Amino acid sequence: MATAISPLAPASFPDMPVIDGVTFSTAAAGIRYKNRTDVLLVALAKGTTAAGVFTRSKCPSAPVDWCRKALQGGKARGLVVNSGNANAFTGKTGAQAVKLTAEIAARALGCRPGEIVLASTGVIGEPLDATKFEGVLDDCARRASAGSWSEPAKAIMTTDTYPKGACAKATIDGVEVNIAGIAKGAGMIAPDMATMLSFVFTDAPIAADVLQALLARGVKTSFNAITVDSDTSTSDTLMLFATGQAAKRGCPTIESASDRRLAGFRKALDALLLDLAHQVVKDGEGARHFVTVRVEGAVSAASAKRIAKSIADSPLVKTAVAGEDANWGRVVAAVGKAGEPADRDRLAISFGPHRVAVKGARDPSYDEAQVSAYMKGQDIEIGVDLGLGRGAFTVWTCDLTKEYVEINGDYRS
Amino acid sequence: MATAISPLAPASFPDMPVIDGVTFSTAAAGIRYKNRTDVLLVALAKGTTAAGVFTRSKCPSAPVDWCRKALQGGKARGLVVNSGNANAFTGKTGAQAVKLTAEIAARALGCRPGEIVLASTGVIGEPLDATKFEGVLDDCARRASAGSWSEPAKAIMTTDTYPKGACAKATIDGVEVNIAGIAKGAGMIAPDMATMLSFVFTDAPIAADVLQALLARGVKTSFNAITVDSDTSTSDTLMLFATGQAAKRGCPTIESASDRRLAGFRKALDALLLDLAHQVVKDGEGARHFVTVRVEGAVSAASAKRIAKSIADSPLVKTAVAGEDANWGRVVAAVGKAGEPADRDRLAISFGPHRVAVKGARDPSYDEAQVSAYMKGQDIEIGVDLGLGRGAFTVWTCDLTKEYVEINGDYRS
Repeated sequence: MATAISPLAPASFPDMPVIDGVTFSTAAAGIRYKNRTDVLLVALAKGTTAAGVFTRSKCPSAPVDWCRKALQGGKARGLVVNSGNANAFTGKTGAQAVKLTAEIAARALGCRPGEIVLASTGVIGEPLDATKFEGVLDDCARRASAGSWSEPAKAIMTTDTYPKGACAKATIDGVEVNIAGIAKGAGMIAPDMATMLSFVFTDAPIAADVLQALLARGVKTSFNAITVDSDTSTSDTLMLFATGQAAKRGCPTIESASDRRLAGFRKALDALLLDLAHQVVKDGEGARHFVTVRVEGAVSAASAKRIAKSIADSPLVKTAVAGEDANWGRVVAAVGKAGEPADRDRLAISFGPHRVAVKGARDPSYDEAQVSAYMKGQDIEIGVDLGLGRGAFTVWTCDLTKEYVEINGDYRS
Repeated sequence: MATAISPLAPASFPDMPVIDGVTFSTAAAGIRYKNRTDVLLVALAKGTTAAGVFTRSKCPSAPVDWCRKALQGGKARGLVVNSGNANAFTGKTGAQAVKLTAEIAARALGCRPGEIVLASTGVIGEPLDATKFEGVLDDCARRASAGSWSEPAKAIMTTDTYPKGACAKATIDGVEVNIAGIAKGAGMIAPDMATMLSFVFTDAPIAADVLQALLARGVKTSFNAITVDSDTSTSDTLMLFATGQAAKRGCPTIESASDRRLAGFRKALDALLLDLAHQVVKDGEGARHFVTVRVEGAVSAASAKRIAKSIADSPLVKTAVAGEDANWGRVVAAVGKAGEPADRDRLAISFGPHRVAVKGARDPSYDEAQVSAYMKGQDIEIGVDLGLGRGAFTVWTCDLTKEYVEINGDYRS
């Protein structure tokens, strides 16, 4: 298993602010890993609103089932995340483990189990022994503080090679509010499957249905626009919590998604979600290149997205990028197989600033040496113009390397 | 580039029959490869009926465009196939090259250009210099004979590691007829893209629209049910030619697809198409395991096919098979991401005879040692029972190995 830090990793973990109303602590519950923290407890102030978006998998994990119910109330007092076991495809025992975990956490935090949300990441199909949280979570609750965000970011890692965090400031009606988020990557560790998890916290006073609207819109062009290997997890979870503590500083409570005072916050949140999503891709297993696939000129944005995904998920395009090879023939094939409206003879393709194909044939002015030099860079942009309409969409992915196969093939010898 | 013969290759090339009315020869036109044949000319007797199915790519190659038109007449007198250049995404010059090739072949065979069908495989985006066929095809026409089928099978290879052929006999109204087919694999060679090509010949007298009906049905569960890496080519081509020469032996001409006398022929043809399709998968780049994905209990056959494809195309499932790891958690995830009706708690999964999961959780009686032993075999069967309905479908694929990435990543150092 590759444990070296991804060459695409940010230089350092950001210096993230305290979110008034949010305290946390981590512990080593010994779910699966040795000598590392594997459980995170986040305590949320009374009145914290919450929203979430989850995997579209038809086989979701037990924690996903739980959160969908728990968030119907739009409130949360505590978040428990464990790594090492996804508690997915664990049948009735999985649901029981989730319930027990929520009960232990609720006791520790002095709230109702229904106010606890949960996420798990790690092995699929292994029963999760929630009794291991007995005592551990009580101790976490006692130790909970507004400490360094790198600790919770580390506790939720599986095959991630670095902790992922991002923060932002925004003003609502002139009052400054903070946003802080952490995430873990969609890394896969043979023979188990990890998960994309992300949790975002703010002290802004925002109603739950507004948070939900913000997330639903925000993920479209961030988390839902990235792909490492096209394999949707059973447990993907993104939750947003608003403690409302900024009200003490005179911040008005936002009750409507169309409230104009939300504009700055929405912008800051969207940027933060995109930052975290990019960090996930940059930690894709075996990733050596960060790839931006920008499709324009499609008949619609939905069509552009399907074509961009078709390119970003193409093993041939991804291996070509790994080989630093400007193989636009494979991009053509990926456009063609997407099944979306495309006119071969109007198609233009570029790598970064270099247009390699135009009007359904090689660009006469295409200089192979220049493009080859460009492909040696770490950030590769593949541009496709279908020349049909105004539909555009951008997807981010990474290359497909031998290391990916190694990590996930778990070659036994 | 891996050139060793695939470990999944058949022991030997089959001993294939002469097809009355079919003669052929090959030559080295120097399109791209050195010291090997790269062009095939097949001469077809007067009255030969023809049908074809082609790539669904929205960016098809110039030869595919040509064949779709040429086959409208339902007749063919000659087939020209070249390897080394796919003549795909070559704009107007591509269409001109196809026209010139057909004219040269028509002159050589004494027929109309519209009676010539063509296929090309190799580089995408490179103009094909059809003038190289001048003289070469005339010479081929002179040398054409009913020789060994391994020669045409070799001439159309690109990254294939072995020639692919299959044959069958059937009786129509008591008269024995022969079927012979060749194919090349969907191998990819960086930085170029190859193609799946297959050509089938019979001496049975069968009307073109009947041939078309036979093919359209036959590919559904053969060529359209295999996947190496989910990357549909720009040039996939399967054509069926019937010389009708068996009429001399008293074989009746079949004018209707519903003619009961066709039953034996259809069965033999379907078996031959499946044989060739399997040979293509077994030569998938880097393939070390042949994988059968059998999905049953789905709400419909179409739903079963989408789920089977989702499993067969999952990089995580494919790398797990490469690692000889019975990672059913990844099968669950692949079922979940297919977007088709699935009830996690009714799902059962098996590897070969070993059921590993049932009712949405690990099978209590599952013996890891037994399953691990099974996974070391070369033929792996993944069985999924959704427990919802009667829809079933089987897809065949190969594993995803480091060699695949090596072959297609063309690592430059």
